[in-house]
Amino acid sequence: MKPRLLCPGPTPVPEETLLELAMPVTFHRSSQFRAILGAVVADLQEVFCTKNPVCVITSSGTGGMEAALTNVIRPGTKVICCISGRWGERWKNISKAFGAVVVELTCPYGEAITPAQLTQALKDHPDAKVVTATLSETSTGVRNDIQGLGALVKDTDAVFIVDAISGLGVMECRTDDWHVDFCVTGSQKALMLPAGLAFVSVSPKGFKRIDETLTQGPAASFYFDLRKYRDNLKGNDTPFTPANTLIKALRHSLARLKAEGMEKVWQRHERMAAAARAAATGLNLKLFARVNPTSGLTVFEVPEGLDASVILSRLEKEHGIRIAGGQDTMKGKIVRLAHMGYIDFFEVLAAVSALELVLSDMGHKIESGAGVSAAQRAFASWKPGA
Amino acid sequence: MKPRLLCPGPTPVPEETLLELAMPVTFHRSSQFRAILGAVVADLQEVFCTKNPVCVITSSGTGGMEAALTNVIRPGTKVICCISGRWGERWKNISKAFGAVVVELTCPYGEAITPAQLTQALKDHPDAKVVTATLSETSTGVRNDIQGLGALVKDTDAVFIVDAISGLGVMECRTDDWHVDFCVTGSQKALMLPAGLAFVSVSPKGFKRIDETLTQGPAASFYFDLRKYRDNLKGNDTPFTPANTLIKALRHSLARLKAEGMEKVWQRHERMAAAARAAATGLNLKLFARVNPTSGLTVFEVPEGLDASVILSRLEKEHGIRIAGGQDTMKGKIVRLAHMGYIDFFEVLAAVSALELVLSDMGHKIESGAGVSAAQRAFASWKPGA
Repeated sequence: MKPRLLCPGPTPVPEETLLELAMPVTFHRSSQFRAILGAVVADLQEVFCTKNPVCVITSSGTGGMEAALTNVIRPGTKVICCISGRWGERWKNISKAFGAVVVELTCPYGEAITPAQLTQALKDHPDAKVVTATLSETSTGVRNDIQGLGALVKDTDAVFIVDAISGLGVMECRTDDWHVDFCVTGSQKALMLPAGLAFVSVSPKGFKRIDETLTQGPAASFYFDLRKYRDNLKGNDTPFTPANTLIKALRHSLARLKAEGMEKVWQRHERMAAAARAAATGLNLKLFARVNPTSGLTVFEVPEGLDASVILSRLEKEHGIRIAGGQDTMKGKIVRLAHMGYIDFFEVLAAVSALELVLSDMGHKIESGAGVSAAQRAFASWKPGA
Repeated sequence: MKPRLLCPGPTPVPEETLLELAMPVTFHRSSQFRAILGAVVADLQEVFCTKNPVCVITSSGTGGMEAALTNVIRPGTKVICCISGRWGERWKNISKAFGAVVVELTCPYGEAITPAQLTQALKDHPDAKVVTATLSETSTGVRNDIQGLGALVKDTDAVFIVDAISGLGVMECRTDDWHVDFCVTGSQKALMLPAGLAFVSVSPKGFKRIDETLTQGPAASFYFDLRKYRDNLKGNDTPFTPANTLIKALRHSLARLKAEGMEKVWQRHERMAAAARAAATGLNLKLFARVNPTSGLTVFEVPEGLDASVILSRLEKEHGIRIAGGQDTMKGKIVRLAHMGYIDFFEVLAAVSALELVLSDMGHKIESGAGVSAAQRAFASWKPGA
């Protein structure tokens, strides 16, 4: 059976990137590696739409989140967390672990945080020093309005920290134009690399806040001290031994994004997402995120009476298709079909086909062929900006 | 030219391990991956000589060090740091960054910290809560007496934290028998993997101290919270998205260690180190660490009048041999030839040969062939335990 990975991370990795990982290991304190790191960071800046330093950290995405947050909070710092799902909750959990005071903005799962909510919160909490948000909330399939939220934070004293881990390289994310002070992503999503690297861009306002925070007592980070990454970046170097094979491999995946151009990359994902959403109707499934869906994945509600774990396990065992279930409170209620990175429409089509086969066999009413047909029609008729 | 990497990390990676890295990426929350993680941790326990959990963290070695330390310190905690070089200094720097009070035990670079020094320090500072040490001090080529130091810490209130990053899998390190509460290593040394993973074993005394420390105020870590790693390990899982391709590849490198047996692995490194040290006489070079040399690398003093950077660059450009120079205050004074992991005697011989060619050409007096001859004789006549 041919395995196909359509989970919201890790995602499939292009062959030339995988082959680079099999090349002999080289020394990281060398002119050769410095040239590579310099080129990688320059390419990352294009993906981030930023002119600011992009720190390359050897860790999971959560390490990048901790790096962004712990450099600007101390016990008692007030943080406004925009929470539209599990990953929004993670900002809250990190903040609380370090003793920050959290103001929670919430919405029903499946919906997005509105700029109006943040307007009110900033009014109620003028002493807030940080606002966190999530670009693509993969736990629910929702896209948050980072541009709208950033416009509100920009003129306040707060820094704006965004988890773009599964959104960057998928959908529009203009870090500088949208006033994102700390933009965090990970390697194993749209950057088309195995897990192991996190990337954090930091604005001048962000670095200023880091310096101010350091006057308030001992650091909350050594390994995640972003000033070290910035300073080393000036010499195309890293403060600690980096996962240099991953960085070398990243060149190849970034070359794909660069050749395509970010606008086209975003459109490609939008088009796949439109096809996946259209499939829902054909499959007689409800979409969980109806209003502001992310383009990185599509979340279907599990029909009444069907067991999500059986759907997932049959998809994998019978058809080699690996999609994801719900997490925590969403477990059993949704299934999540990711289409980000090195995944194309035909793999989405394969997943829709397999879903149709499995769901039908489990007794769910589907007109045979309706899912793939709907996806095909939506893909064929898709127009940018429509 | 054929490149040969004889630096103290990253080290060469076996071919079967590299090829695993080129395999398609798979999902990490699966029974298949859990089985692999469980097997990897069991094998790591053999390498660590421990029955305790070995936490698998996606980070550099320094991330592992921070994990060990920040779980048991808070501002004001007294830490005794055994400092015999740059990596001993790192424990001090992390401790100070987090506001701990550091008692420094030092010795001239090239020597080891003695148990007598620690006896006195523990007497003078009965309120010390942590003792840090370094098994293999790669900045100077010294091996510290972890067994002797551990025996002193064991009956005190302090926990014993050891940086075994470039020592574990090279030389004897009996984590449990030697009373090491937190033993830290990294992937890119003797574990024969690219950089990107850190491993931390934690004793029951260590976990008890983590719990006590948490009663003293907010955590100093979220990503590095070792309780999370321990709890997830019970289900062969990780708290955050792991660098799962590295973990899958690690199986193959660990299989080599397991097949050989740890005693034999330690002996193999001792034998290579004996050969490298013997070469010094033939090369008319002084050893920097004369009394307690590590078996992971051999450090030569740079002869008066010769430029270390020229030696290193000629070794690489003319012969493809990459060894390391001195760091920080040792820069220009030493060169460091590593022999750990997937390196054998014949590569050490190649490095000795290239050193002889370059040094002779730079005007250093060497009897032609004396270096390789001395190495060969020492290797041939080596006996375990001699």
